[in-house]
Amino acid sequence: TSSESPVVSVQQTANAVQNMVKYGFPSTDNLRSYEDFMLSYDRRTRVPNWVLEHLTPEKVTAKEGVERSKMQFVEDVSVHVYHRATNKDYLKSGYDRGHMAAAANHRQSQNAMAQTFTLSNIAPQVGEGFNRDVWNNLEKYVRALARKNKNVYVCTGPLFLPQYEPNGKLYVKYEVIGQNHVAVPTHFFKVVVVENNTGQLELQSYVMPNQVLPPDIKVHHYLAPLDMIERAAGLNFFQNIPKETFHKVNSPPKIKS
Amino acid sequence: TSSESPVVSVQQTANAVQNMVKYGFPSTDNLRSYEDFMLSYDRRTRVPNWVLEHLTPEKVTAKEGVERSKMQFVEDVSVHVYHRATNKDYLKSGYDRGHMAAAANHRQSQNAMAQTFTLSNIAPQVGEGFNRDVWNNLEKYVRALARKNKNVYVCTGPLFLPQYEPNGKLYVKYEVIGQNHVAVPTHFFKVVVVENNTGQLELQSYVMPNQVLPPDIKVHHYLAPLDMIERAAGLNFFQNIPKETFHKVNSPPKIKS
Ligand SMILES: [Mg+2]
Ligand SMILES: [Mg+2]
Repeated sequence: TSSESPVVSVQQTANAVQNMVKYGFPSTDNLRSYEDFMLSYDRRTRVPNWVLEHLTPEKVTAKEGVERSKMQFVEDVSVHVYHRATNKDYLKSGYDRGHMAAAANHRQSQNAMAQTFTLSNIAPQVGEGFNRDVWNNLEKYVRALARKNKNVYVCTGPLFLPQYEPNGKLYVKYEVIGQNHVAVPTHFFKVVVVENNTGQLELQSYVMPNQVLPPDIKVHHYLAPLDMIERAAGLNFFQNIPKETFHKVNSPPKIKS
Repeated sequence: TSSESPVVSVQQTANAVQNMVKYGFPSTDNLRSYEDFMLSYDRRTRVPNWVLEHLTPEKVTAKEGVERSKMQFVEDVSVHVYHRATNKDYLKSGYDRGHMAAAANHRQSQNAMAQTFTLSNIAPQVGEGFNRDVWNNLEKYVRALARKNKNVYVCTGPLFLPQYEPNGKLYVKYEVIGQNHVAVPTHFFKVVVVENNTGQLELQSYVMPNQVLPPDIKVHHYLAPLDMIERAAGLNFFQNIPKETFHKVNSPPKIKS
């Protein structure tokens, strides 16, 4: 569990954070740094604004003794009780506790993986057909990228997208669950920067609706323009990288997904 | 207009900010400090998270040459264009550009008042029956408090409150206006700390729905528990004041409203 003493030094954590934010902070509100990912927590919606990871071939390789089956979801006691999501909020809500930083991205230590089960890294996701299926496929695809490249930077988070109603006006509408009114995002984004073994940078950005999705659909069906995500999320991603630096932007995949 | 050179020194501004945050920051995201108020801007909703003011008898006293009629609403060019509200967003939306820090609270200088017309201090409000009526009455009442007391601290902002739908579930729903999807809050809060001339502290906290309200209703009809506002807004107000310090909390008014 996450109450185990960390197995990394302060210097290692500082290095990890430095790697994660190498290309900039999406925002600076309510930051939390963990052993192998960091996030900004939205106290109003009780889900993260964004979660940032730096992946390498080593980090996504299974290590003996680091097993997901041993993990438990834990509340983030660093968040004021007024603004904290609890396990009870999710209970019988019909939604999964969906990881933003995926557990299987952090296989270097029991502690690193356990920290991904902190509820500040979690948002309500449709289970079957989404979290356990198409969204999971996207996470697996990102890990495949991490295995075959030098560095992969991933920023993941919720979106609350508006829709037109019959009166011709646009409305944002989302369910809130539990006593603490945890917001159920309408969509999720994942923005991925890949640095390949020759140092070239590639950008891929995805938006998926938080719904049951067709089981055989390719994840690349959900590629979406970066600026659309930045506008809707109220964030700027990897802003230290001039856009013209990218070798490829949202181009078809080479790795089978 | 706000492009006039400021009439206050850096030291005066620093003092003003120090007074405003004497009792704590509601949050620390996207802070902006002006001559006589400060705010946290929500880049996702394009309205402030909160706006904080420190009022004194002097500040709310009319000064020759400082006139609202000379003012124009201006965009906040310090906000990225992806996340910035514009005058065009409000045009023909049916909503007023509603001040969070009220213009008439800042009568010490043309510059101080002009800055309240920055769109980062603005949110869409129902005009007749709300912004121009009952909400305006609340602002007048707060100025009456400021005239009769040593110090008044005011924190104002939007709320997006959930409602039950026929399926028994809770949903947050709000309109967004213009090309930049400026969010129309369902409610607004105003949290007021009054320090009277003997140094006693009083707290008053209000929530009003962003709707046409009954014209003769007393503003104190809208007193609401502080913790309800803190939970819904994702904020903590004046947290440097221990709750037991307050002489009065949401008790009936002495000044006629
Ligand atoms: Mg998952
Ligand atoms: Mg007004």
